Amino acid sequence: MSDPIDFRFDFSSPYSYLASERIDALAAKYGRKVRWRPIMMGPVFKSIGSRPIIDVPLKGDYSRRDFDRSARFLGVPYAQPAKFPVPTLAAARGYYWLHGQDCARAREFAHAVFRAYWVDGRDISETPVVLDIAAALGVDRDAYATAIGTQEIKDRLKQETDAAIALGVFGVPYITVDGEPFWGADRLPQIEKWLETGGF
Amino acid sequence: MSDPIDFRFDFSSPYSYLASERIDALAAKYGRKVRWRPIMMGPVFKSIGSRPIIDVPLKGDYSRRDFDRSARFLGVPYAQPAKFPVPTLAAARGYYWLHGQDCARAREFAHAVFRAYWVDGRDISETPVVLDIAAALGVDRDAYATAIGTQEIKDRLKQETDAAIALGVFGVPYITVDGEPFWGADRLPQIEKWLETGGF
Repeated sequence: MSDPIDFRFDFSSPYSYLASERIDALAAKYGRKVRWRPIMMGPVFKSIGSRPIIDVPLKGDYSRRDFDRSARFLGVPYAQPAKFPVPTLAAARGYYWLHGQDCARAREFAHAVFRAYWVDGRDISETPVVLDIAAALGVDRDAYATAIGTQEIKDRLKQETDAAIALGVFGVPYITVDGEPFWGADRLPQIEKWLETGGF
Repeated sequence: MSDPIDFRFDFSSPYSYLASERIDALAAKYGRKVRWRPIMMGPVFKSIGSRPIIDVPLKGDYSRRDFDRSARFLGVPYAQPAKFPVPTLAAARGYYWLHGQDCARAREFAHAVFRAYWVDGRDISETPVVLDIAAALGVDRDAYATAIGTQEIKDRLKQETDAAIALGVFGVPYITVDGEPFWGADRLPQIEKWLETGGF
């Protein structure tokens, strides 16, 4: 059995959202699993002296157009949220807590968070919004709220972000297939060829 | 007859080289012509406070891997030049001079310059190397050397670079189809869909 594909992302990243809608099916086509690993891009950018693409002059304007066009190209529903980017601690911490209990539920939750933000424009930086998303999937609201306040879960997310920094992650989605890193939703065709051929 | 597609590039840009090997055939498939427009990315980066991707920590290391992998993915011969990036004034100025005399010859010359650098590792920042490339295509060496020293040709390249800055170009290849901008060789599939559908 091959190692799972690592899919590192931030819920607030548009290209991460686009990749999230395709990566599992793509992997499954070649008999592979995907390990979803939300991280916080704020600390990553800070550690390398970078910033979100949307804040870069000219590139930011182009990118807004490209987010939407890339979504249409992939056939993924997309509506640019007014408040963007946002910190996504409550969702990312909760993801790891849920994952420790029920992998499938965690995956379902991650999709729901992405879609709440990128389709419905809900503010996923607000903890009550994230609790609503979890509750709609049958997760106990109070248990979730308590879990994301524990040191164990806070540390888990911090470790994931630190590990990404140590790996050299500078942007997301950052997808690793058998040690080969691919940055960006636009590398999905290369990932497919890599899976198909075992490397090219 | 539709307007030509604008293909803005720097001979020293790896993704510009990759696009150069595909853009004409892609356009021709949909009955379109391409206007090749070399520019100098040095002044563009300076004007917007940016820098070549290769100089960005972490992203630079990833990019070296991605240049080569993207070339293999597209089936384009590629060998990372030792000296990179380089200023390409002699080639870009000469391109516009040749274009004023013979469009087809100018296109042939542009391909030869790209391949001299990206396949054969020749230093296209050196004027004698560029003169050799031109001479091999039957261009008069002395006439070329004289032309690229004239104010008219120097101004022409400067105007092209200034126009690109005014348009908001922040990176190359920068390909414009009926007013829609596409940045990067990895947008060729989106360009194809745009040409096929008239916009999506």
